[in-house]
Amino acid sequence: MRLRLLSQANRLRLLQRQRWLATTSSTNLAQQQQQGERNESRGKRDYNGLVYGAATLAGIGAGFLLFNELDKPRSSNNIITTSTATVAPPALDEEATARLWHTTKRNDLPVYSVDEVSKHNTAETGIWITYGLGVYDVSEFAPNHPGGDKIMMAAGSAIDPFWAIFQQHNTLEVLQLLEGFRIGNLPQLEAAPVELEHDSPWSQEPKRHALLKPTSERPFNAEPPIAMLSEKFLTPNEYFYVRNHLPVPTLQPEDYELELEVEAGEGQKELKLSFAEIKALPKHSVTAAIMCGGNRRSEMTKVKPVKGLSWGAGAVGNAKWSGARLCDVLRQLGVQPHEQLHVIFEGADLDPTSHPYGASIPLSKALDPRGDVLLAYEMNDQPLSRDHGFPIRVIVPGTVGARNVKWLTRIIVADHESDSHWQQNDYKGFSPSTDWDTVDFSKSLAIQSMPVTSAICSPMPEEHVKVDGDGFITARGYAWSGGGRRIVRVDLTSDGGKTWHVAELEQEDLPDGRHYGWSLWTARLPISAEQRQTQSVELWAKAVDSAYNVQPEAFEHIWNLRGVLANAYHKVKVKLV
Amino acid sequence: MRLRLLSQANRLRLLQRQRWLATTSSTNLAQQQQQGERNESRGKRDYNGLVYGAATLAGIGAGFLLFNELDKPRSSNNIITTSTATVAPPALDEEATARLWHTTKRNDLPVYSVDEVSKHNTAETGIWITYGLGVYDVSEFAPNHPGGDKIMMAAGSAIDPFWAIFQQHNTLEVLQLLEGFRIGNLPQLEAAPVELEHDSPWSQEPKRHALLKPTSERPFNAEPPIAMLSEKFLTPNEYFYVRNHLPVPTLQPEDYELELEVEAGEGQKELKLSFAEIKALPKHSVTAAIMCGGNRRSEMTKVKPVKGLSWGAGAVGNAKWSGARLCDVLRQLGVQPHEQLHVIFEGADLDPTSHPYGASIPLSKALDPRGDVLLAYEMNDQPLSRDHGFPIRVIVPGTVGARNVKWLTRIIVADHESDSHWQQNDYKGFSPSTDWDTVDFSKSLAIQSMPVTSAICSPMPEEHVKVDGDGFITARGYAWSGGGRRIVRVDLTSDGGKTWHVAELEQEDLPDGRHYGWSLWTARLPISAEQRQTQSVELWAKAVDSAYNVQPEAFEHIWNLRGVLANAYHKVKVKLV
Repeated sequence: MRLRLLSQANRLRLLQRQRWLATTSSTNLAQQQQQGERNESRGKRDYNGLVYGAATLAGIGAGFLLFNELDKPRSSNNIITTSTATVAPPALDEEATARLWHTTKRNDLPVYSVDEVSKHNTAETGIWITYGLGVYDVSEFAPNHPGGDKIMMAAGSAIDPFWAIFQQHNTLEVLQLLEGFRIGNLPQLEAAPVELEHDSPWSQEPKRHALLKPTSERPFNAEPPIAMLSEKFLTPNEYFYVRNHLPVPTLQPEDYELELEVEAGEGQKELKLSFAEIKALPKHSVTAAIMCGGNRRSEMTKVKPVKGLSWGAGAVGNAKWSGARLCDVLRQLGVQPHEQLHVIFEGADLDPTSHPYGASIPLSKALDPRGDVLLAYEMNDQPLSRDHGFPIRVIVPGTVGARNVKWLTRIIVADHESDSHWQQNDYKGFSPSTDWDTVDFSKSLAIQSMPVTSAICSPMPEEHVKVDGDGFITARGYAWSGGGRRIVRVDLTSDGGKTWHVAELEQEDLPDGRHYGWSLWTARLPISAEQRQTQSVELWAKAVDSAYNVQPEAFEHIWNLRGVLANAYHKVKVKLV
Repeated sequence: MRLRLLSQANRLRLLQRQRWLATTSSTNLAQQQQQGERNESRGKRDYNGLVYGAATLAGIGAGFLLFNELDKPRSSNNIITTSTATVAPPALDEEATARLWHTTKRNDLPVYSVDEVSKHNTAETGIWITYGLGVYDVSEFAPNHPGGDKIMMAAGSAIDPFWAIFQQHNTLEVLQLLEGFRIGNLPQLEAAPVELEHDSPWSQEPKRHALLKPTSERPFNAEPPIAMLSEKFLTPNEYFYVRNHLPVPTLQPEDYELELEVEAGEGQKELKLSFAEIKALPKHSVTAAIMCGGNRRSEMTKVKPVKGLSWGAGAVGNAKWSGARLCDVLRQLGVQPHEQLHVIFEGADLDPTSHPYGASIPLSKALDPRGDVLLAYEMNDQPLSRDHGFPIRVIVPGTVGARNVKWLTRIIVADHESDSHWQQNDYKGFSPSTDWDTVDFSKSLAIQSMPVTSAICSPMPEEHVKVDGDGFITARGYAWSGGGRRIVRVDLTSDGGKTWHVAELEQEDLPDGRHYGWSLWTARLPISAEQRQTQSVELWAKAVDSAYNVQPEAFEHIWNLRGVLANAYHKVKVKLV
């Protein structure tokens, strides 16, 4: 179904509403997610043709070395049950064959359900993983895993999504090593649900990468394992966190129209821009981290429960966004600077009452060339995916994710903020003593620019970390501040703040006030004799931005009933080996 | 001596240098300061003609009531020793006479030195104050003082400067009450030093208000008692903190010239502007708080010593500044936006090597109309005083005080920051573990925009505070953040953070990003039964700005070797009565 968006707005809203009302069943999207990549080959319902690579998340170089050392001879009957494997093939064919192992049922081994596998996710229960149809017990291997405890991200579940990212593991040696740990098979994949919920507003949801761990499925909200985040300065699109408030609308570029209205202040009253017209405007790119207002909420919750999705520290990603500059479009309309005006954005995603998702920003931000607000159609040089706002979303660098409206269909210059729920009664900060009896949303400022924050991505909590020859361990993570404020320092401590170590930063060389991308950081931290003895250490990270704002130490005094703005020191306890 | 500044720059520098070299004696400027107002009537060397008012700092209304109640009959020989006081005069004459009491020596009472008086500054030693020539023992009165412990600001010293501000106390009743506590006389004022140090660079220092308590005298640096700060939204010029780095230069408006140079980027290469030409440009006003980078350093020092002047929380003030906009001047020169350029400011104040005080800001701030950078010639509608940069200083709203260069004589658009000591090797932040052995100033960002902060101005530390009938006490203070970020909330706690109370704010209604003035706040805080019993409570204040940045809890983890950016929670212990 194609929708003519603006001229047919009423029809769209009516349709969406019918879908909402028709939704009675709530088929488990998690099941669909688990199948993830699998669904891409639906019909064949096996893994033929999928070539998964294999790599650890860290220490890839070291990994190959160790894998080679561990590569002991294995009996052929322990490896191959395919019918063609009776004659030793040449090397290349051997690897091609090895790539089929995990997609082939081993009749000599039992069948385990996904549920059964999921119970084996610690050293105590044994560490099982699956790859394709294969079930593997890697308990013995895990302590020697070159990437350390990173393997535990997949404990009790599939390694497929990780190896799909790190294809360097796609070698005969690794596949042989893995098959040596095989203990069983998964059952045949179940057929996809017969009922596709054609009338549900959720029926058009896009497929998601299995690395995205949902905190909510309808609407879809998911973050990647945070250890993935510090690996790449630009977060790959496929596992960039997704924060949807409503079902994902289906828009076609050829039908797309962006409606602009100037309700208040100077300027041409109306303009409609097609997708082609937006793409024909001067193209501008900006690196910007987008962060959910609720990022790290799960840590704040430990102080006292809050309302909201239980995000870890992965509700953030950094991308290169490209599109037309909103300031160019507004100036073309004749819009003039005015301190009291706002720019309202509406998306094509509709709530059950047919109201669109909406948000607003001050006109001063929208008009400022240094504000770098974009009508974006590309993310990391790729067209936006449907989950990220295809075909057009607004990117408001330095500003909380909630204002970066996806599936953008309407822009209004007005003398008031958006009256949407998300602008008026959500995404606002409150005093720690404000509760649901006393809260008055009208008294608080809608979050725009975000405060300084940082997170330790590696090591992960409870990860087993090797102390190096000099008595140090290495930590990595991200740091970011809103409003274009550059990160100027990240301090790490391994002794509860007695000594602080300044991290090395990886960041763009951009001026303050326009530094919208995040900074990745790396620090080597000393481990004391006592910590070696107790085999335990807690790491703390805190960042400083160009306004010399710092993170608060703890969540206690920044707690708020919505669990937003959770930017206290990030503290991670790890095990030493 | 008049100086033709720019055309005669070399001569000026030479002169200043000679003065530096000639300075061998170091006459105590504190003595000069103590005399403060007195020097204004030098020659007569007494207080005739000075009409001091009298008021408490708080509860002025209540004050009059209580004063009237306390106004008991006193015997005339206890009051008047002037020769004309033998006949009861009419009411008006009586008041005129009373105004002479404190400037008249009482021959029936002993003489005490300033040193002796200064020893009586607590309840234990007795509370003595001086007013004019009179010495008064107000130990009995102090607990009943309508303004509470505010009277202790003057304990052991002169009330003259306080009463000069709060002239509402200038009534017969108050003067009679005071004279009743008289116990003695100060000695005759000493003659001014015979040597006026004509050749010293310090010989031209302006007179300062006695409320300004110096943290350093040469150069002059001083702050008012912080209880004064929360009294007025616009800080009165006379006790606005002074932060000088060098001797105060003497400039004459008719000789003044501002030299502009465009070294890098586009624009007319040179321009000279006279004082009249600057005043002829469109006049623009902005309310901006100016804060020293070292404000509240004395609190940070308690964690571990730092290098720098020991500022309290009074190295900040809020004023309405007026002048020409720098962006207008730069645009007139044809200067275009350029992310890599800086604007360097030089003052007429010279160091011993004849280098001027200097600082720089990014060109983006200088060119932005929302940046509100001014070539200011007025402070609270008065011409700048010499201590505040007469005739012209640059006001860089939202930016650390050090970049608000006074006695501005030169502006350079350049491809580098100012190479001055104060830009390169001072006013920078560092990690708590950076010490003087490891510090590398080139690695740290020069402070520009300041982080969010707040302070409790009233009650003062150890002040005796009355709990009201409802079981509450009232606290007042200021809050501010740099970069034009509005204060959105100030939280107070009287129970160590278990419960937080949101303060009422007094602030301008200006948009975020351009909200450069401070916010004054007032909060009523509950006192528990236990706190009443122990007669003690500690109050904490923390502010939140529009980017939802918060203050750090404590100084331990923001400590830095220069003691700048001291913006932890402000904590004040008070006594309850």
